[in-house]
Amino acid sequence: MTTIRRSGCPINLTMEILGDRWSLIIIRDMIFGNRRHFRELLMKSLEGIASNILAARLKRLTDLGLISRRDDPSHKQKGIYSLTEQAIQLVPILAVIGGWGRRHLAASEELSVRARLLEEGGPAMWEKFMDELRALHLTTEDARPGAKSKRTVLDQLNAAYEASRNRTSTP
Amino acid sequence: MTTIRRSGCPINLTMEILGDRWSLIIIRDMIFGNRRHFRELLMKSLEGIASNILAARLKRLTDLGLISRRDDPSHKQKGIYSLTEQAIQLVPILAVIGGWGRRHLAASEELSVRARLLEEGGPAMWEKFMDELRALHLTTEDARPGAKSKRTVLDQLNAAYEASRNRTSTP
Repeated sequence: MTTIRRSGCPINLTMEILGDRWSLIIIRDMIFGNRRHFRELLMKSLEGIASNILAARLKRLTDLGLISRRDDPSHKQKGIYSLTEQAIQLVPILAVIGGWGRRHLAASEELSVRARLLEEGGPAMWEKFMDELRALHLTTEDARPGAKSKRTVLDQLNAAYEASRNRTSTP
Repeated sequence: MTTIRRSGCPINLTMEILGDRWSLIIIRDMIFGNRRHFRELLMKSLEGIASNILAARLKRLTDLGLISRRDDPSHKQKGIYSLTEQAIQLVPILAVIGGWGRRHLAASEELSVRARLLEEGGPAMWEKFMDELRALHLTTEDARPGAKSKRTVLDQLNAAYEASRNRTSTP
């Protein structure tokens, strides 16, 4: 999992960093699930990431400057992970990847709703979402989503996901 | 490299297919370099892909329905690889990945020119480019780029790349 710089092509360099099956999945969970602690990322993982893989990827992403770790002010013994500006700017990549997967692969309905909204929202919605993520991740204050009264993109995406999940789980 | 469907999330499913260091690189070379033969994909590879890895990835991408292989009408013993509609629709993903890599990683100038043009061109240019790729890959006739008189997106991207390469190689 080292980066060897096989060429200076921007697509190659990005794939040297994100071209594995887990790094972008961890960043997805931090972005859409606002999961910030190791235990949360482990226990709530839809794909059942293994503890040692999660630890190794978090360390690698930290070394690469995509996430940062600090002590959680409310639980001294726990670390809290934050996205850096570089990782926040992955939102458009996640949006187009989600859109492609939704159209071409056997994605489940309730897990595709957010991808569809994000795709339909386009660059304007991505910018707004990235601003929200900056407020959540790039400040040290405990800025929880929902602390503000205005409806965020994250609220919107999660409400649509919950609604779809309730529909599918109804017999 | 098997696909195990860890979850029905469209981002996860896409990463199960493209989340390795080579698949998207091979597709990149077919899209931007119009490389259609095994030998070309091998010998011209900037990243120096190994022959056995290239063979395995081409087989896997064919099995997944992202590329197809037929006998080359001009060289009976050689196969010619084509992109399917599904792979052609990866253009927006390559565009945003290239844009992110160009901004955040140490990409070389001459290998970033096409990424910049494609990013600036936005969805309108991507659509036009995908139409050109459909003409090149989804028809059985030998539609070589440049056979038509009108200036294609591929011509435009390659001209900018060559110009930048000439600038950087001048002492």
